[in-house]
Amino acid sequence: MIGIFDSGVGGMTVARSIELALPNYPVVYLGDIARTPYGSKSAAIITNYAIENSGFLVDKGAKVIVIACSSASSVATEQLRREFDVPIIEVITPAVREAAKVTRGRVGVIGTSATIRSESYPRLLTKQDPALKVYSKACPLLCPLVEEGWTGRRETKMILRRYLHDLKKHQIDTLILGCTHYPLLKHLIQPRIGKKVHLIDPAQATAENLKTFLVQNPVVKEEPSHTPEDNLYYVTDTSQSATEIATRIFQREMKLLPA
Amino acid sequence: MIGIFDSGVGGMTVARSIELALPNYPVVYLGDIARTPYGSKSAAIITNYAIENSGFLVDKGAKVIVIACSSASSVATEQLRREFDVPIIEVITPAVREAAKVTRGRVGVIGTSATIRSESYPRLLTKQDPALKVYSKACPLLCPLVEEGWTGRRETKMILRRYLHDLKKHQIDTLILGCTHYPLLKHLIQPRIGKKVHLIDPAQATAENLKTFLVQNPVVKEEPSHTPEDNLYYVTDTSQSATEIATRIFQREMKLLPA
Repeated sequence: MIGIFDSGVGGMTVARSIELALPNYPVVYLGDIARTPYGSKSAAIITNYAIENSGFLVDKGAKVIVIACSSASSVATEQLRREFDVPIIEVITPAVREAAKVTRGRVGVIGTSATIRSESYPRLLTKQDPALKVYSKACPLLCPLVEEGWTGRRETKMILRRYLHDLKKHQIDTLILGCTHYPLLKHLIQPRIGKKVHLIDPAQATAENLKTFLVQNPVVKEEPSHTPEDNLYYVTDTSQSATEIATRIFQREMKLLPA
Repeated sequence: MIGIFDSGVGGMTVARSIELALPNYPVVYLGDIARTPYGSKSAAIITNYAIENSGFLVDKGAKVIVIACSSASSVATEQLRREFDVPIIEVITPAVREAAKVTRGRVGVIGTSATIRSESYPRLLTKQDPALKVYSKACPLLCPLVEEGWTGRRETKMILRRYLHDLKKHQIDTLILGCTHYPLLKHLIQPRIGKKVHLIDPAQATAENLKTFLVQNPVVKEEPSHTPEDNLYYVTDTSQSATEIATRIFQREMKLLPA
């Protein structure tokens, strides 16, 4: 199976992109709602949680693990590669590659405090192309706003305007949505950062990357009779709002299983 | 020692009130920052965390435990009383008693989703006085706003106005600040709910309650040479912003110890 974990429900945008790209591949997902969010916590704590989550997925039969969380991808990838024998796919590199392809030189990155503090995006971006100018901004209130379902409210628009102000001043031409919750705010981000700015959604880039990886390394195989409805979605804590967000992301009725 | 726990830093407003009321009593505090927040999570998960936190405090020598978190007080108090031999003090009852004393009949309660869903405040308020009208409102974005230090921002004021709108319409005369973060927003809440509305801060009410309890049940004793600076503040995860909030609450330099 393809194993996917996230700090909660945000990573379901990645899981959804993977379902669309690889509909006949079995998926097991773990959302660590009991300890969400990760983005405000330390690298050491996030790494511990990532190891526990990966252990759960391997026990369920995962042969490849996707870290569907930018915060965990930023701080825990190397440690997971040391601890587990299965390949580890993260969400930073695919987004960086796509951004480097489309940018004219000025890239913005928004993410949680843990992600921005880790400097994982600017480090990988300037490794791809040392001439790139990279501007980062931590946006810690966006996840709570998405989780409250405030994706159309005036307050959310004002908070976004404040967060994006400096990036706009720096005239970025490409913006990496460096947290899996942010694609749910795309419709508010695009008009505020500027219509011509490329928005990079790590979910889509990661799904394409996983597809290419599985062609070259068929550690998980296609099962013609398998459909996305057969995939298993586990959570470490159940809540009504989690089920609602899941249903909105997958556009089908979702049953979240207790981990 | 007096043991105090909270989901994170909010409970430090309770600890601070206890230090002011009982300056010569030794205190050990645990802030569960690694799993914060509790208020968006299920009663079962919050209860598990409350049991672990209380175990930590008892191991450190606590002879009485204060649950300095409305969410945990709302859902975990009975279970803690069954599991532990030491007295358990929570933050709901003292606030309810004070509200019942000052109200002219219409009480508002704001809190996290877990606290409001539990209906602990309205249940206890109407037990005190069945004639009371109680109106509740979950305010899940207030904690993240306080933790980001946005306690003076225009966006915070707008969000507060939206949350308080119905309570104002119901013409409440008393408002229980049913989360330990909210006293840090008192200066914004008072003008928006109305100058004549009594704001009940559970931190102060709980500290007074603990003081009375210790006079009647001296399970922890005064130590004349002890000062608040000798108290121990543990956290399950360290972060710069936690230290900053702690320093703001205690108005002295705070050293948070790893739990």
